[in-house]
Amino acid sequence: MSDTSATPTSPPAPTPTPSKGNRRGRKAGPADNSNSEFANFPEVEYFIAPGPRGYPPLTEFLDIWDVDMIRRIDESNKLEHHTELYNSENLIVRRGQEFQIKLTFNRPYKPDEDKFAVEFTIGSSPQFSKGTYIPVFFTKERQSSWAGRAIANSDNIVTVGITPATNCIVGKYNLYVAVVTPYGVRRQRPDKSREMYILFNPWAKDDAVFLDDEMERQECVMNEMGIIYHGAYNDVAERSWNYGQFNYGVLDACLFILDHSEMPIINRGDPVKVTRQASAMMNSQDDNGVLVGDWSGDYIYGVSPTSWTGSTDILISYARSKAPVRYAQCWVYAGVFNTFLRCLGIPSRVVTNFFSAHDNDGNLKTDIILDENGKIDKNRTRDSVWNYHCWNECYMSRPDLPQGYGGWQIVDATPQETSDGMYRCGPASVHAIKHGEICFPYDAAFVFAEVNSDVVFYSRRRDGTLDLVKVNRTHIGRMVLTKAPGEETRRDITSQYKFPEGSAEERTVLEKAEEYGCKRVKDNPSLADVDLTLPTLEISVGDDFELDLEFVNHTKEKRTVAAYISGSVVYYTGVPAMSPVQTPHCSNWPQKSVKELVQIESKKYMQHLVEQCNLNFIVTGKIKETGKIVTATKLVTLHNPKLTVEVSGNAKVNEEMMVTVEFTNPFSFSLEDVNVRMEGPGVMLPRRKTFSLILGGSHLTWTELFSPQRPGKTRIIATLDCPSLRQVDGQVSLTVEP
Amino acid sequence: MSDTSATPTSPPAPTPTPSKGNRRGRKAGPADNSNSEFANFPEVEYFIAPGPRGYPPLTEFLDIWDVDMIRRIDESNKLEHHTELYNSENLIVRRGQEFQIKLTFNRPYKPDEDKFAVEFTIGSSPQFSKGTYIPVFFTKERQSSWAGRAIANSDNIVTVGITPATNCIVGKYNLYVAVVTPYGVRRQRPDKSREMYILFNPWAKDDAVFLDDEMERQECVMNEMGIIYHGAYNDVAERSWNYGQFNYGVLDACLFILDHSEMPIINRGDPVKVTRQASAMMNSQDDNGVLVGDWSGDYIYGVSPTSWTGSTDILISYARSKAPVRYAQCWVYAGVFNTFLRCLGIPSRVVTNFFSAHDNDGNLKTDIILDENGKIDKNRTRDSVWNYHCWNECYMSRPDLPQGYGGWQIVDATPQETSDGMYRCGPASVHAIKHGEICFPYDAAFVFAEVNSDVVFYSRRRDGTLDLVKVNRTHIGRMVLTKAPGEETRRDITSQYKFPEGSAEERTVLEKAEEYGCKRVKDNPSLADVDLTLPTLEISVGDDFELDLEFVNHTKEKRTVAAYISGSVVYYTGVPAMSPVQTPHCSNWPQKSVKELVQIESKKYMQHLVEQCNLNFIVTGKIKETGKIVTATKLVTLHNPKLTVEVSGNAKVNEEMMVTVEFTNPFSFSLEDVNVRMEGPGVMLPRRKTFSLILGGSHLTWTELFSPQRPGKTRIIATLDCPSLRQVDGQVSLTVEP
Repeated sequence: MSDTSATPTSPPAPTPTPSKGNRRGRKAGPADNSNSEFANFPEVEYFIAPGPRGYPPLTEFLDIWDVDMIRRIDESNKLEHHTELYNSENLIVRRGQEFQIKLTFNRPYKPDEDKFAVEFTIGSSPQFSKGTYIPVFFTKERQSSWAGRAIANSDNIVTVGITPATNCIVGKYNLYVAVVTPYGVRRQRPDKSREMYILFNPWAKDDAVFLDDEMERQECVMNEMGIIYHGAYNDVAERSWNYGQFNYGVLDACLFILDHSEMPIINRGDPVKVTRQASAMMNSQDDNGVLVGDWSGDYIYGVSPTSWTGSTDILISYARSKAPVRYAQCWVYAGVFNTFLRCLGIPSRVVTNFFSAHDNDGNLKTDIILDENGKIDKNRTRDSVWNYHCWNECYMSRPDLPQGYGGWQIVDATPQETSDGMYRCGPASVHAIKHGEICFPYDAAFVFAEVNSDVVFYSRRRDGTLDLVKVNRTHIGRMVLTKAPGEETRRDITSQYKFPEGSAEERTVLEKAEEYGCKRVKDNPSLADVDLTLPTLEISVGDDFELDLEFVNHTKEKRTVAAYISGSVVYYTGVPAMSPVQTPHCSNWPQKSVKELVQIESKKYMQHLVEQCNLNFIVTGKIKETGKIVTATKLVTLHNPKLTVEVSGNAKVNEEMMVTVEFTNPFSFSLEDVNVRMEGPGVMLPRRKTFSLILGGSHLTWTELFSPQRPGKTRIIATLDCPSLRQVDGQVSLTVEP
Repeated sequence: MSDTSATPTSPPAPTPTPSKGNRRGRKAGPADNSNSEFANFPEVEYFIAPGPRGYPPLTEFLDIWDVDMIRRIDESNKLEHHTELYNSENLIVRRGQEFQIKLTFNRPYKPDEDKFAVEFTIGSSPQFSKGTYIPVFFTKERQSSWAGRAIANSDNIVTVGITPATNCIVGKYNLYVAVVTPYGVRRQRPDKSREMYILFNPWAKDDAVFLDDEMERQECVMNEMGIIYHGAYNDVAERSWNYGQFNYGVLDACLFILDHSEMPIINRGDPVKVTRQASAMMNSQDDNGVLVGDWSGDYIYGVSPTSWTGSTDILISYARSKAPVRYAQCWVYAGVFNTFLRCLGIPSRVVTNFFSAHDNDGNLKTDIILDENGKIDKNRTRDSVWNYHCWNECYMSRPDLPQGYGGWQIVDATPQETSDGMYRCGPASVHAIKHGEICFPYDAAFVFAEVNSDVVFYSRRRDGTLDLVKVNRTHIGRMVLTKAPGEETRRDITSQYKFPEGSAEERTVLEKAEEYGCKRVKDNPSLADVDLTLPTLEISVGDDFELDLEFVNHTKEKRTVAAYISGSVVYYTGVPAMSPVQTPHCSNWPQKSVKELVQIESKKYMQHLVEQCNLNFIVTGKIKETGKIVTATKLVTLHNPKLTVEVSGNAKVNEEMMVTVEFTNPFSFSLEDVNVRMEGPGVMLPRRKTFSLILGGSHLTWTELFSPQRPGKTRIIATLDCPSLRQVDGQVSLTVEP
């Protein structure tokens, strides 16, 4: 009697896919790693053999007429589950919290006679023991892992409440109502309207992503408009970024990313595994992930990294084309990753580390090689310190680690070619980084080096070996910033990564890291008796300016310094592009402080500028009397002109308004192939316009109509980008009335 | 004066490669990740500007005539560094141990006047601070990280001793002798004969791979002929494997593997990083690694996994074609990986875990689903337990972990589709696995599950949910075997992985693993009062046999069992291929033990057999009186016929001998497309021959001539393989006189 296995409300055994190729002897079934495929459930499953007149019509029993998913954005489910902002027709709820649906039958439901269950399935091969098939019952005798209860029963309508398990799989489920009769089971036809999403729940106490602070939740899950910090640590700039996690299609795009990575469905309830997988998928390496990185300055085959205003365009384009999107640099990776995390309900934020050690493979050393005269040896200096680097933090418990390492975790999607040979990074516990406990997964040693390396200056001797000149132990990881929750200001979270410079705790941490194999330079080279300092400057692109070198002689004797000043245009990665300013310089003074002015003319750097307009000045010199070498570096981030963004009209939901973006080319040269983009959460999806030429000194105006979709405070942000001028932006705030 | 930077014995600044594509602003120099490229060093570097007659001829000073690398296999360097077996013209030494070279100058060397250095470079962009350019000096004043001393100075010849640092990069170096004159530096032209290899050194106390046991070192570094265990845990079979780590071209192939993976040169001194990278590279996934896995039974586009006799063919073919080699299953991955590790000097061994949990993504549960009558539900049982699984252990310290986790480390190259989303595994500390400390990298939780999972039997209820029937907590990880050092016997190392079954320590370990997120089934379902056991059988392929079911009734009452016997032909991965034997079976007995015989005729299984000839019997049944379900499983590994291998002639080095492989087809059917292979360390490189047809009952003879290359005990192993009969082998031992 093989048909006895067809039992009420049970999923029919999925037919094994025909064995293909080399998997036949390797696996007992097809891989269940796509959330876009659903198993087909039959409408009717009989327990009995057909009688003389065929099967009895099961409609004589309780019959399902309708299921109301209570999925409108003004209804209780979405409001109570904080999912009302998602632009989706479908029900979206969070796990570990009850939601309700209304079932309409053909007659009143009689609890003692009628039997039904609500079944959930996810993936192509639903199995009870794997948590991919969940039948929910509404009687005391039969309880399942997802609690079910009948809340109301009036006329033909039964309202039921269902609480998905707090550790259930996150993604898109299919919902069936199955009525059990003595002869078999009747189900509804599959219907798109009953597909629903279950997300992580930072509001649920037992969820691994529970975050017990409403203001943080509002910021790190619900806020769409972010600020990403960049520039230099002493001249911080900010860029607005529209995460757009609630925009139409973004949630599906995020699930598509996991599907494209072939992540097993059964792992998708574990935020550690989901974030690790996603950190690999955000970049195109290995796995045809979301974004192609490019730092070349030449972006004609795609969108320049500085041009993007938010994540929506990128994610939608990726899901549509199923091919990587061009181009990204670190803040683009971090911005899109943040959208992914917030969209799935994992609290997250973008952080910026100023002076981030890179490409040193987790060593605690960045080497700068000088020649015997103290001049920087550019061919031999291969390590680079990024002016800044952005990554993400996400909030979760870490059951895979000993107690105490939960909370904020670093994940980084920017492809680091030397992180354990792979293009992914994290989650690494911020607490573990701070305490030097870098033996715990994932990639903690690598992140530790990014914030704790030393910059080591060597001078090359004639025999090719190196002499230690100076160790700068405070340069790297100078400051870590993120946006403050609920405000548009920054929050310095350096103290979450490091103990105070020079404290006893800091020493202990560094010693612990050394025990775990981090090598660092122990020697303290004797310092030169002359100090060299450079001023902090705020300069606009196109300005001539003066650099103010100060030599301080700490002795009572005469000191002569042969100094070299090298001013390089650098990428934000610290990699030099061109060195237009190079001045040998020689000074004499007896026992005091001397200031020397060096003129920097804009024409010397303008033609060499690369995106983000950074000039890095390195002054090095040799003291004639002692042979000691002195060094000083200063990063000058030139300030770009701004866009003016203005709105007019009545800021009310569904009323038409006008936005105007204006820009005046402040330079004497023309700008060609100028891309302007704008968008704003709740008011405008990304729009763009290209201007083929803006003559020097001339003016550009772009006006667009739009209608706000929802009330509240929001912003419209705009960027302007062209090969000879990148990263020009502007924004306007507005408050939309209901 | 820009030429002041050209200084004695210094490597010229490598010219930066023209910036290509998207790397320009990302990295300051080209990636240094290939050991097959060397920087070009100029022969002469002047410190001075040319005079009126051009540059002075530096040959007037000390001139280098010759460098004797002392690289013959009967000379001290190779003998003392245990590298005399490598079939290579070049010098091969181990780090942390002195080797000598002899320098011949044009006249006697005068230590007070003449200056020279021996320079080592590795990779395309040698840098002193990265350990890729190492100048070695021979005076007390100038010491470098690699100690140098002048040992003898007679006539024009200077013998120097050089000790590479114990943590130096492992790979192929270029050696130059540089003579320093007042006007500049003279070097020799690059020459292949001065290329040399530096390997890991298990004999050096400070090396991370130091192994303080000469017998283990002889086995795990020096031994070429290995034994890999397979079969069933109560009927263990063995397969000989020629690692061939010393064969011509194998060392270069191993370095090519790291080059092909683009592993940064500077990481190649760290055995943790090297083994992790190599575990990814052994399989073709992600990175076009060495071996394509295939478990389909159909290998016409390559060599069947059971046909290989050793690693040499595979590695040489991979290095030559630069493309993955077809096909592998776990022991092939483990065999080739072992060659890689021993070849580079990392002590290693192949281990076999009997009943290895797989495809459960590090969960501690393997689910077997039965229907309500106790019959196995094949469509719903997706997890599989591998009859056995082979991986590697390698020996090293773990500076990246807290103290105590050094020693043997598990690495696994078989692509596990669910290990952290990646096709690599380890190194995971065996000590950490034993103690449940699975929070430490790499992949410890996954390996823990492979040896510690529970097999959970569920019965499906009518409503689709599952009832727990039985938890078998001792089935998985039943036994771990490896070859005993210096002997041809096996060594049971289960106790290095697990505490004794039922001990207090075992309970503690499982509790600790649970703290780190391993889920397991806690419930102990009440046991049925009838036991069911199956006998252990040793059967040859083609035999009819009887299966002896024993039902033991523990009560004083009558028990009736409706039992199903299902005998499936299974792959060694536990995946069923066909179920030729399926017998409903019903028995009645009051209160005692009853034996029932089930006849298994060979014709029922012969036509369905897949490689490795495993039959898996599952008997399940329902006790009518109590409704309880009883289960029992037994794996029967059918024994294959053997090859006869015989040698004749005088076993002396360089004297010709003869080997004969004989086989009689014991079946009534013909064997087609029969591949026979043989090889033996120190006596014969892999050879193969194809026979298109061996009629049923007929006889095959293959004779080959060979000349042993070195004295000592060795073996010749042979395999026979064809689509209808796989994994037939044979071997012969011989002792070669010098």
